[in-house]
Amino acid sequence: MSQASDAFPSRLKESEDRVAPFIRTDPVVHSGNKYRWHGPLDEVALSKYERDGFLWFEGFFNQERMAPFFDELLEMAQDKELLASDQVIRDPTTGDIRSVFAMHEFSEHFSRLTRDPRILGMVRQLLGSEVYIHQSRINDKLGFEGSGFYWHSDFETWHSEDGMPRMRAVSASLMLTDNSEFNGPLMLIPGSHHYFIPCVGETPDLNWRQSLRSQRLGIPDQKALKMMADRGGIQAPKGPAGSLMLFECNTLHASNANISPWPRSNLFFVYNSVDNLLKEPYAANSERPDFLGARENTTPLTMHDDFPELA
Amino acid sequence: MSQASDAFPSRLKESEDRVAPFIRTDPVVHSGNKYRWHGPLDEVALSKYERDGFLWFEGFFNQERMAPFFDELLEMAQDKELLASDQVIRDPTTGDIRSVFAMHEFSEHFSRLTRDPRILGMVRQLLGSEVYIHQSRINDKLGFEGSGFYWHSDFETWHSEDGMPRMRAVSASLMLTDNSEFNGPLMLIPGSHHYFIPCVGETPDLNWRQSLRSQRLGIPDQKALKMMADRGGIQAPKGPAGSLMLFECNTLHASNANISPWPRSNLFFVYNSVDNLLKEPYAANSERPDFLGARENTTPLTMHDDFPELA
Repeated sequence: MSQASDAFPSRLKESEDRVAPFIRTDPVVHSGNKYRWHGPLDEVALSKYERDGFLWFEGFFNQERMAPFFDELLEMAQDKELLASDQVIRDPTTGDIRSVFAMHEFSEHFSRLTRDPRILGMVRQLLGSEVYIHQSRINDKLGFEGSGFYWHSDFETWHSEDGMPRMRAVSASLMLTDNSEFNGPLMLIPGSHHYFIPCVGETPDLNWRQSLRSQRLGIPDQKALKMMADRGGIQAPKGPAGSLMLFECNTLHASNANISPWPRSNLFFVYNSVDNLLKEPYAANSERPDFLGARENTTPLTMHDDFPELA
Repeated sequence: MSQASDAFPSRLKESEDRVAPFIRTDPVVHSGNKYRWHGPLDEVALSKYERDGFLWFEGFFNQERMAPFFDELLEMAQDKELLASDQVIRDPTTGDIRSVFAMHEFSEHFSRLTRDPRILGMVRQLLGSEVYIHQSRINDKLGFEGSGFYWHSDFETWHSEDGMPRMRAVSASLMLTDNSEFNGPLMLIPGSHHYFIPCVGETPDLNWRQSLRSQRLGIPDQKALKMMADRGGIQAPKGPAGSLMLFECNTLHASNANISPWPRSNLFFVYNSVDNLLKEPYAANSERPDFLGARENTTPLTMHDDFPELA
């Protein structure tokens, strides 16, 4: 742990003096002026991302392009070795798959998706460097019972538990199903990425086993959350399968339970800058497994050149 | 219990043969042809109510008219005798008020609201008779932590636990706060009121003490819910404080947790036809308290003649 000189102190002891939310100093768009417009995003999009902390692309891919990823998920559900591993999180009561991590490491199909030229082009433009995959996962929220995720900043966890030094990562979330008002869509607080909110509660050992099911640490206090939501409101973009969300690593987000009959599945790829490699965790005693925060494979991604849906 | 000849069998034993959902035979609009148009609702509204099982009036009252009800709620929160009674349901952890029942019995202010000529006029037209208040309550869903209610038909409970003979009641829900996409608004399945769905699970003694906090009985099975939602979809009307929802006693509804910072408070008045007075419970060993299902005060409501907001 290297908390002494920590620019983003969190997981504070209950007894410690509280540290109030403070304004970030890291850029949101990392490309220097010279390279800012060298990429697929125009200035309208870049400014919007700087202001809100996310960009939504309704129907980015067509729905048919998403179908094979479902089929592969069904195959994974038959793979006993995979199911028994730590990188699959199952529902404690039904045994259904809830999350699968690091698909891009064992599926060429998913790997190519992370290297889609348009996604990778945008991510490089936002992060101003070559990038690699910090984490990939599928979140499956079943109908009737899929539980929600409370408000949090991913960066708070990645910094505290994975040793990610600065705010220079972006998540791409690709919808495998329609996301509607009723099946627990991602909710975001626009503008919240401009603040770092130190959280209270020390990280216990092996916290990640617990936190993947229900996050209890890295939760901003209600006063800070209310301030953010009163300023920026809440948005929950909806759209058909194939829609894409890019969101900055420090944007506060949450999702509600899914009590509709309709399942919700989203892919997440977290891209980190190669100039922002993980160090020792800032507020945990040991590193999390590689499938949660990659340290082994940090080779810069190369574009996969096909545009199959445009062929 | 009088289950033998029960037109709406529910709370079935686990071991019993399942009874599939069946189409209701009770009218939805109870006024006979001769009186159907004797009231404030036109045929467009009546047909919509018949089809969907609810009517939504955005901004029915202006927001200023709602403010005094809030003030009275704050007064109630100071009333130690009231707080200690069964008719106040408090949050088990914070102690905050979650529900207050039968306000119209001790507050002239709330009583007059139940007798508002326009609401009462619509309710009489829908139920085709004089009416009385079967139950009244406030549901308070606090910011960050207000929990949800799972899918259910009110009639299933009122029939099984209160002995309400037929589907001839309507709920009026009046919004004391804005209802947005994010603070756990009422969700309804249009058209679901056309079916009665027998539910599995016998009613334990004093079930109501449990069920007001979290309903575990009278829950339709997932197959039936999916069929209903696939046919009718889900709707969650939103609007400012003062908006009004009228919904038929057998319309399936639910609400999600409120993880926004913004509280949600709704008033509910349940109107029952004086030709539909409670009998013995159909699927429970004893009656619930009077504040949940009125047996004492079933005097027909008279209109309160003021239209203060039009003065």
